[in-house]
Amino acid sequence: MGMPLELNTMIITKGKEMRIQDNTFQVVKKGYRLYPLDIPVEVRKTKESDPIGTGVIQKVELENEKTVVTYMLISLNSTN
Amino acid sequence: MGMPLELNTMIITKGKEMRIQDNTFQVVKKGYRLYPLDIPVEVRKTKESDPIGTGVIQKVELENEKTVVTYMLISLNSTN
Amino acid sequence: MGMPLELNTMIITKGKEMRIQDNTFQVVKKGYRLYPLDIPVEVRKTKESDPIGTGVIQKVELENEKTVVTYMLISLNSTN
Amino acid sequence: MGMPLELNTMIITKGKEMRIQDNTFQVVKKGYRLYPLDIPVEVRKTKESDPIGTGVIQKVELENEKTVVTYMLISLNSTN
Repeated sequence: MGMPLELNTMIITKGKEMRIQDNTFQVVKKGYRLYPLDIPVEVRKTKESDPIGTGVIQKVELENEKTVVTYMLISLNSTN
Repeated sequence: MGMPLELNTMIITKGKEMRIQDNTFQVVKKGYRLYPLDIPVEVRKTKESDPIGTGVIQKVELENEKTVVTYMLISLNSTN
Repeated sequence: MGMPLELNTMIITKGKEMRIQDNTFQVVKKGYRLYPLDIPVEVRKTKESDPIGTGVIQKVELENEKTVVTYMLISLNSTN
Repeated sequence: MGMPLELNTMIITKGKEMRIQDNTFQVVKKGYRLYPLDIPVEVRKTKESDPIGTGVIQKVELENEKTVVTYMLISLNSTN
């Protein structure tokens, strides 16, 4: 009786983030995932790419073997 | 940089569950919590009480230092 | 950058537990797993079987894509 | 029946790390904590300080309301 879960320390968007409003974005990930909320995390397009910027996750929803992550982009890396 | 989280293995309702529809209920818990989804878990009114029945958690939402748990009650203990 | 993890709510021994001393047992599980420590959890031989008894996990070690769980068996089910 | 847990995304040493051998260090943290293993994470002296370098966690042990983290320091930040 176990639930597969992935522990994540950053947001990988794969370019699939949707802008909800202003600086708030949402990305849907496969499977159940655990992310840290309310603390700054790196935002990257792919796991190999340089960070796009820094985000703060405001909401994590686990349902139907998917995880919806809502985050506010708090800073953008100038070199990106 | 850490996020406090509580690992939970059963649903403690404290009598505060709301019926969403049919056998589906929702309970709001303080803080960020991790629950197993899609597998049977005990449902109890308090942590010391006997199980009310068995539920399957369908959705877990973490936001604003609260966790909303949506579950389907799949069986009721007859002696309760 | 994610770490696969399995959230577990009970101990499934598959008959592979080793007695460390007295009522203390150890079981090695594949992959990284998260278990609740210090609270009573069911101990089963397989996930489909009836509980053997109740255990309290005292130590969880994650290393080399394995998880070592050390638990004390605090009660045995008489009908097993 | 819940287990308090802290989700961590980096190693904060508070200067209390012990060198186990070569580039392998160990730090003991209060409470039960979850860290990502086998992936690069920042190592910092305090949560506000700049990263000392990058580490890869090789072992996480939870026992007696403490967490022992064993990590290999894979790179040092030159400006530190």
